[in-house]
Amino acid sequence: MKTSLRTAASLALATQLVGCSPESDRPNIVLFLIDDMGWADSSVAFGDDVYPRNLIFETPNMERLAAQGVTMSAAYVSSTSSPTRNSIMTGMNSARSRHTNYGAKFLDTPTDGGDKLEVLKDDVLVPTDWNYNGIDPTGTVPHAAHCTPFPQILKDNGYYTIHVGKGHWAPMGVPAASPLNMGFCVNVAGQIVGRANSYYGEDNYGNRSDIWSWHATHNMCEYYGTATHLSDALTLEALKTLDYPIDNNIPFYLNFCHHAVHTPIQGDKRFIDKYLAKGLDHQQAAYASLVEGIDKSLGELLDYLETKGVADNTLIIFLSDNGGDCIHPEKGGVKHTHNLPLRSGKGSVYEGGIRVPMIASWGSKSANGTKTTTPVVAEDIFATILDVAGVNDYMTVQTVDGQSFAELITGSSSMDYNRPILTHFPHQWRPEVNDDIDYMTALRCGDWKLVYRHRTLALELYNLATDLGEQHNLALSEPEQLRTLAEAMTAQLKAKGALLPTLRATGECIPYPDQLINQL
Amino acid sequence: MKTSLRTAASLALATQLVGCSPESDRPNIVLFLIDDMGWADSSVAFGDDVYPRNLIFETPNMERLAAQGVTMSAAYVSSTSSPTRNSIMTGMNSARSRHTNYGAKFLDTPTDGGDKLEVLKDDVLVPTDWNYNGIDPTGTVPHAAHCTPFPQILKDNGYYTIHVGKGHWAPMGVPAASPLNMGFCVNVAGQIVGRANSYYGEDNYGNRSDIWSWHATHNMCEYYGTATHLSDALTLEALKTLDYPIDNNIPFYLNFCHHAVHTPIQGDKRFIDKYLAKGLDHQQAAYASLVEGIDKSLGELLDYLETKGVADNTLIIFLSDNGGDCIHPEKGGVKHTHNLPLRSGKGSVYEGGIRVPMIASWGSKSANGTKTTTPVVAEDIFATILDVAGVNDYMTVQTVDGQSFAELITGSSSMDYNRPILTHFPHQWRPEVNDDIDYMTALRCGDWKLVYRHRTLALELYNLATDLGEQHNLALSEPEQLRTLAEAMTAQLKAKGALLPTLRATGECIPYPDQLINQL
Repeated sequence: MKTSLRTAASLALATQLVGCSPESDRPNIVLFLIDDMGWADSSVAFGDDVYPRNLIFETPNMERLAAQGVTMSAAYVSSTSSPTRNSIMTGMNSARSRHTNYGAKFLDTPTDGGDKLEVLKDDVLVPTDWNYNGIDPTGTVPHAAHCTPFPQILKDNGYYTIHVGKGHWAPMGVPAASPLNMGFCVNVAGQIVGRANSYYGEDNYGNRSDIWSWHATHNMCEYYGTATHLSDALTLEALKTLDYPIDNNIPFYLNFCHHAVHTPIQGDKRFIDKYLAKGLDHQQAAYASLVEGIDKSLGELLDYLETKGVADNTLIIFLSDNGGDCIHPEKGGVKHTHNLPLRSGKGSVYEGGIRVPMIASWGSKSANGTKTTTPVVAEDIFATILDVAGVNDYMTVQTVDGQSFAELITGSSSMDYNRPILTHFPHQWRPEVNDDIDYMTALRCGDWKLVYRHRTLALELYNLATDLGEQHNLALSEPEQLRTLAEAMTAQLKAKGALLPTLRATGECIPYPDQLINQL
Repeated sequence: MKTSLRTAASLALATQLVGCSPESDRPNIVLFLIDDMGWADSSVAFGDDVYPRNLIFETPNMERLAAQGVTMSAAYVSSTSSPTRNSIMTGMNSARSRHTNYGAKFLDTPTDGGDKLEVLKDDVLVPTDWNYNGIDPTGTVPHAAHCTPFPQILKDNGYYTIHVGKGHWAPMGVPAASPLNMGFCVNVAGQIVGRANSYYGEDNYGNRSDIWSWHATHNMCEYYGTATHLSDALTLEALKTLDYPIDNNIPFYLNFCHHAVHTPIQGDKRFIDKYLAKGLDHQQAAYASLVEGIDKSLGELLDYLETKGVADNTLIIFLSDNGGDCIHPEKGGVKHTHNLPLRSGKGSVYEGGIRVPMIASWGSKSANGTKTTTPVVAEDIFATILDVAGVNDYMTVQTVDGQSFAELITGSSSMDYNRPILTHFPHQWRPEVNDDIDYMTALRCGDWKLVYRHRTLALELYNLATDLGEQHNLALSEPEQLRTLAEAMTAQLKAKGALLPTLRATGECIPYPDQLINQL
């Protein structure tokens, strides 16, 4: 299937180059990226079972997308925002890009322990010298990963590339602060900040003269003072940008990145009442209403594409950038429970932090209504989108780790279920230490998952097939699996040039996991 | 010439509609709009003579454009910003659009006497109920002129339409606050504000957490903390947006609107020293450096178009949105002298307020190196651009007043030198009264100009051929000309549905000028 895909698209490209192309043959592509949405925060069940959280949320348009696409049950990302977004842009695993934690707004500002610009107090570990300045398409920015973003490759091949919403690839003052330097023709609202100042048009989305407005969402003046929720405003803007390419038969790529459902958890009044009626506390209901807001956005996108007659030729990939936030009190509920049945949440390499809702739909070409448990990972999106676009002949300055999962979408072939999926997070996310949200590395291979806790140098082994919640550490009872995964994790870390934190006591890096095994 | 132009472009359009077009035949168009630049603030002499101010400014790229285009010696606009910008967008004279003064940032906020939200104290005149909410493409906004903006028409005809820089068509909370609602595919930085908060990247263009940042320029994060002047940053962004249409052989329209040379008069350090060395005071030198900054921007645009091989097929129209500001102390120099030899400046219907630098260049098609004294006016740009683009078959909700001056650019025909040019400004611009900057209407017909002072109900008559500075009022000595122009002005005001202010003493509108004549 991969070959035939590439052949068809290469033909399309070749005809375009001689100046008269059947452009409509080239598929349109939409990445619909949600912020901080948990794996179970949908009426679509991404697991084998329906869990209690699935019964709370009402996401009819995700159900609609799942019915006309493939539900990806084991979609992995980094545990915080910009590492995932940068893996998507570059095809690099974040261990390779060395952009392993979320990026600050300010240049040269590591976010170890949060972005309060305070010195992190840690008696055990010294953070790595990571690429806190994000990614960089120019190769001129220190502490940033030099890359060729895939939208640039798409644009160079005639695609009309559009960014709408949250960017968060790099801090102020560097090229990757602007979508126009990342290969986008059009930018609506994309910039450096990782969250909205406010979701409320009545608040000018936080852009007011009487409050701190530096952080506000750009390009939204037309909605200032109106009752338009930011999720709705971004949707309206996104659809506007599509008229030109569709009306002129130009293939497009839309990078549609909602700020929702990130904090601030400001309810969407279109939907909050039904969740209050279900007995949720106000903040839980507010969160659920944000989820339904992005579901409505998805539905409006689907409606628009159908009305325009391009739905069947448009690939849509829906996913979240990291697991659900489980420690911010404003989300309501009990800490560390927000991704049940998964363990922990945002900032953690346990499943709750890195396994996210994902659906891929490509009109009649996708294996509609099916679910796959084959693991896929954020950096795969780079390769998948270029594959689907039929762009094969390209150069990148970076080594691309991701692989196309186009065959999983079309159902024409399978991918390796046992492919190693690495999540490397050598950081303390928040100012306060949270046991499960700390310096760690994880590797999934098939059903098995190894967790390496840097602070304690402990290895934990889980069988996800029987223990999705990672409650039963099998490190002692499955020594061969432990060794196999420790060696695989070591190989992955070395192959990708991962940075390891330093033990303050010795001044040396933490050992690789195979070294720990060999010391047993 | 108009016929052949239209035929060629209609052919191009027809071939595009069957899906395989020689797109490159359709000309690209750039409007290069400066803010508050005076008629004599250039080393290009727009008058018959070289005036002292022409010797101060160094604008080699304007000279270059003039050598490869037509210098428009008598280009007229409104006396403040958004009326001109809206006349360009709509083709309506501002007397017809009833958007006769500059627009505020806030909805439903007349700017009579400034935008300080204070009640204007005036014993003589009551302001009109004008369209202070600017223009509106939807027909839903009260106190706004319903219109079909020409970029929408261009876009509907396949043009790739780009807005960069200052917008200022309408306040927050309405559609025209966003370029995407005005027919633009792409927007960089265009929004509601009429001036930059700061020109300095080191200041984040005024978008900082420690100052009032509500007003800052959007989409500029990549330059925050750098030494990039805003004029330079906008240029870099504008050129980026052109790669896609040029590389894909799509005709483009670029609406490139600098914030310079409006207040704040913050010097451009690339150029200021030479003007200090000429003996200018610091603020005069700072202003001159802002002018040279936009000249450099023009040069970079010309270089880019040449490098890309599209210069010969690109129409460039350079102009300012109103005359030079002559009353803000931060510009340096002596009040009311900043447009000499012209009288007064921004906010005034005397020549200093409404006559601006303008050059039109269209590669080898323009009458290069020539100068025309035939009057043209802002609303003509609407018709001219559609004419040059070959778009003839379009509908507008508004009556278009402007006429195409394409023949003036190509030198293939002349326009009517005696065409009446109306400037209607029934407002007090600033909180303080300035004698020459007040409620007035002007009409130019050929060499003659009538000025109607609403406050005193006085008519003044000038012969611009012999008295460019409007120093010799011939109202008493040329009664027939006075009557002719008074009747012409009356006819214009009535035909366009102009609103007249009310005399507080009588509660009635001021008389039409022909009524004043008849009372003599």
